Amino acid sequence: MQPKSDKPKILIALRPALYDLLFADEQKERLASLGELSRQTQAGNLTEAQLTALIGGQDIVITSWGTPNFSPAVLAAADRLKLIAHSAGSIKRMLPPPVFNAGRRVTHVAYSMSIPVAETTLALILLCLRNYHKFDRAFKDGGWAAARALPAGGELAGNRVGVIGAGYTGRAVIKRLLALDAEVWLCDPYVDEESAKTMGVHLAALEPLMRECPIITLQAPATAETYRMIGREQLSWLRDGAIFINTARAHLIDEAALLAELQTGRISAALDVFDQEPLPDDSPFRGLDNLIITPHIAAVTHQAYKRQGEITVDEVARYLSGGKLRYEVTRDMLDTMA
Amino acid sequence: MQPKSDKPKILIALRPALYDLLFADEQKERLASLGELSRQTQAGNLTEAQLTALIGGQDIVITSWGTPNFSPAVLAAADRLKLIAHSAGSIKRMLPPPVFNAGRRVTHVAYSMSIPVAETTLALILLCLRNYHKFDRAFKDGGWAAARALPAGGELAGNRVGVIGAGYTGRAVIKRLLALDAEVWLCDPYVDEESAKTMGVHLAALEPLMRECPIITLQAPATAETYRMIGREQLSWLRDGAIFINTARAHLIDEAALLAELQTGRISAALDVFDQEPLPDDSPFRGLDNLIITPHIAAVTHQAYKRQGEITVDEVARYLSGGKLRYEVTRDMLDTMA
Repeated sequence: MQPKSDKPKILIALRPALYDLLFADEQKERLASLGELSRQTQAGNLTEAQLTALIGGQDIVITSWGTPNFSPAVLAAADRLKLIAHSAGSIKRMLPPPVFNAGRRVTHVAYSMSIPVAETTLALILLCLRNYHKFDRAFKDGGWAAARALPAGGELAGNRVGVIGAGYTGRAVIKRLLALDAEVWLCDPYVDEESAKTMGVHLAALEPLMRECPIITLQAPATAETYRMIGREQLSWLRDGAIFINTARAHLIDEAALLAELQTGRISAALDVFDQEPLPDDSPFRGLDNLIITPHIAAVTHQAYKRQGEITVDEVARYLSGGKLRYEVTRDMLDTMA
Repeated sequence: MQPKSDKPKILIALRPALYDLLFADEQKERLASLGELSRQTQAGNLTEAQLTALIGGQDIVITSWGTPNFSPAVLAAADRLKLIAHSAGSIKRMLPPPVFNAGRRVTHVAYSMSIPVAETTLALILLCLRNYHKFDRAFKDGGWAAARALPAGGELAGNRVGVIGAGYTGRAVIKRLLALDAEVWLCDPYVDEESAKTMGVHLAALEPLMRECPIITLQAPATAETYRMIGREQLSWLRDGAIFINTARAHLIDEAALLAELQTGRISAALDVFDQEPLPDDSPFRGLDNLIITPHIAAVTHQAYKRQGEITVDEVARYLSGGKLRYEVTRDMLDTMA
């Protein structure tokens, strides 16, 4: 039997219900075989003080939604911490730059969420193009003739789609659009012409992209640079009848400007994210026929939850068996990440 | 100037409104440059007797929805007819086997419709998996909390989809499903193992396909062999929670059996086609929450209409410049075609 101190210590800083949601039994067993586990036992989220008290002596910490931010106090107590395996996507608020000091490394599971978000984005584009939901509703409420009176839709094949942002999700969206024979334009200041060519997309600045693409989808991260990048002026560039999709972050758009544009009826849209969530009951977004709204569920699937846990355990195993991580986040990536 | 008799005579046996819908001005001009055109001038569909009176002396006839069937009387009058360019998909009822006598050739535009039908099929699969229409409705009617109370959905990526029939549309569906990382099983007695391998699908008989695939989509043609191929027994093979899509033909299924299965709530479905169209107002299909219904619009897009005309003129041009057609239908294909 190995002496206890030889096994790496792993802290699971997640609410028990969230741990059960993200980690299948098989992954919990793998994790237990990789180290000596400590688990948060209280039902609610930890406070910063509680995390500070737990993190001393831990080699690895597993975090996710609801884990407290890694403040200076938390980091001061993290005397042995070498890996933060974040079983969620956005890391910047929870894991500020000092997290990367003292050789500490960070990984996350944004890739996992790119699959359901890309499928949602594609579905919402097809819905806005063809209005299947309106056909279903009119058919059920008013009958065949009422449904047949709705206008014909348009095709994705041969259409031009502007994608804003080519992170994991943007790339997953681009792959699907190209496979469906759409022409894809991309706006991303961190992608060069050669990478764009490899991806099969036409690189464009924001203004020509919004003017020339009848379908626009936002997949950019929430950073200082992207805050309210789509406002009244940018929306005025859209063609009449354009389709505008946001499955990324409300941070990216000026909601009042988008609302005003939608109220004219000039464009249609689908939104999964809102400045204020839960969306207030009196929000005018609830009353627009040219807008599809979903309650921040673009990434929510049975498979995505469990895949988050699986990728997290994979990363811990990779770290312990040599150190090469598949989804490592480094300090210099933070500026262009959420 | 060429003598009039040297130009091939082309009869456009379509209602003027349908001719305008399917043929853009550019295509009308191309057609006029290819031959000496005669056009149906009356607003309604031709009768068989009217077609018989018009078809004598014509080298080529352009047909579509509403053109009368090519009865023995029509064919007896078609003394010079060499090409029937059918600007629609299904041909068997309008163009029975004797049409192929006397060296007459036939082409059609089923390929054109495969694009919008494949996009519709994909969209309906994603809708059944994730219920975006229910999120939108619950969000608008009941607010954020009501929408968030809906269950999480499933992903297409990594899921297994059974496709029944690999004609133009089946192949277009398969291409899209594979690009979205689904595993595809195919049931089609006219596809061999080698073709299946090339397509990237797993060939299966109907029973294992319906038992093992949680998502099933019908894309078979309406033939004697496929009549009511999906009945009570076949539906009983479906897994609990299976998704069943029919964007092909009502001919393929026993509607009463499907209704009974849907009423148990054991499966969900999306239907674009019905035994009786218009669907009667008292149809129980209008009252099912686990069913999406659309009024036979899977193929209806702006692009599809005009592409039908474009492909038709392309085929006429190909015929006149040498005879090799891209979408020729031969007599021996009729058994497996609609």
